[in-house]
Amino acid sequence: MKTIGIIGGMGPLAAADLFKKIILKTDAKTDQDHIRILIDNNTNIPDRTACIKGMGPSPVDELIKSAKLLENAGADFIIVSCNTAHYFMPEVTPHIGIPFMSMIDETAKACKRMGTDCVGLLASEGTSASGIYCDALAHQYIDMVEPEPDDLHVVHEIIYDGIKAGNTSFDTTEFRRVLKNMQERGAKQFILGCTELPIAVEMFGIEGNFIDPTEILAIKAIEFAGAKVIG
Amino acid sequence: MKTIGIIGGMGPLAAADLFKKIILKTDAKTDQDHIRILIDNNTNIPDRTACIKGMGPSPVDELIKSAKLLENAGADFIIVSCNTAHYFMPEVTPHIGIPFMSMIDETAKACKRMGTDCVGLLASEGTSASGIYCDALAHQYIDMVEPEPDDLHVVHEIIYDGIKAGNTSFDTTEFRRVLKNMQERGAKQFILGCTELPIAVEMFGIEGNFIDPTEILAIKAIEFAGAKVIG
Repeated sequence: MKTIGIIGGMGPLAAADLFKKIILKTDAKTDQDHIRILIDNNTNIPDRTACIKGMGPSPVDELIKSAKLLENAGADFIIVSCNTAHYFMPEVTPHIGIPFMSMIDETAKACKRMGTDCVGLLASEGTSASGIYCDALAHQYIDMVEPEPDDLHVVHEIIYDGIKAGNTSFDTTEFRRVLKNMQERGAKQFILGCTELPIAVEMFGIEGNFIDPTEILAIKAIEFAGAKVIG
Repeated sequence: MKTIGIIGGMGPLAAADLFKKIILKTDAKTDQDHIRILIDNNTNIPDRTACIKGMGPSPVDELIKSAKLLENAGADFIIVSCNTAHYFMPEVTPHIGIPFMSMIDETAKACKRMGTDCVGLLASEGTSASGIYCDALAHQYIDMVEPEPDDLHVVHEIIYDGIKAGNTSFDTTEFRRVLKNMQERGAKQFILGCTELPIAVEMFGIEGNFIDPTEILAIKAIEFAGAKVIG
């Protein structure tokens, strides 16, 4: 079996969530049936959205350091537990000699397999502005709806003031209103396009027709590592 | 802040549990406030209990490999997310130049601080047979009660057939009977002395006066790393 390398720390809970999803989705009866996984929960990586908005340093140097660390430690391929960080990966992958599996591309391909023709994107301001999901979905001929420009801050707040700040009593009324508005504009499913969002919808009990890129990536990584997926 | 190195894979869910407990107990408002953590979820480590029972290969070589890998990758100290593996750590630590923080010793010290005079030990057959908790508790002048010899298999089964095998509908009637029996023999609190057991009591909704070594280790590791613990 191949060893998986996870660049984490963006945020830490998202890395733990990806790690746990890989374990729970692996068909294994003993410890030794599971996949070896190396994690660099690198909390020195600067904020990705702040950089894309021109308000903070680039995360590229630290992403390269983590990717090299994982390659040197024995990882056979790399996955990254942050959607926004994927925008910077074309600057990272030339520095390593092992494959990188993209959560964005795997999610767009999964939407295609599900037969979805219009999805709503819930993401950080950085991911939205970068256009990475828009490009990957267009490649699969799938339309995409985003929150109204005036509502982008609502998704930002549940990510930063809810999950990243560890506020379990965060008020989700506004977030639910934005979901409803996007549904009215054609979104049949919602991509939880920030790795903090699957944690948020579970923690705050928000229901919806959600697509979880973390889970899609977990399953694809298990298959590529050579283990069997449950179910 | 210091970087934490976690030797995991024993089992994988226990490593994910320790990782998550460190994150949730760290007082942090942004990704960058969190502690850098390196994890080797090394599923090549042979079963620890099988070795102590003389029925399997030694885990020492793989434990040394993981400890060295984490030291070389930049870890400032090592923690291990498996109680039974602690029995082998005196053979591992001479091979590394960074400190090792023992979950067993930290748990015994925590029992002392709580003023407990008699605890029940719930552990794998390997941990029970090794005497590591008995020794650490005796050092703090605390008495220890174990399941009756005929009942040791009950704890083994919830660990191996329940958690490690991923069986969420495991029948816990026998386990609850063993807890009651130990309470009648003087146990005022129970050490969940296998890192799969905090996961088991949560997953199966078992209530009791439990001491969770994973949580005690998480808190001590946060403090040693130089971050602030919540609450």
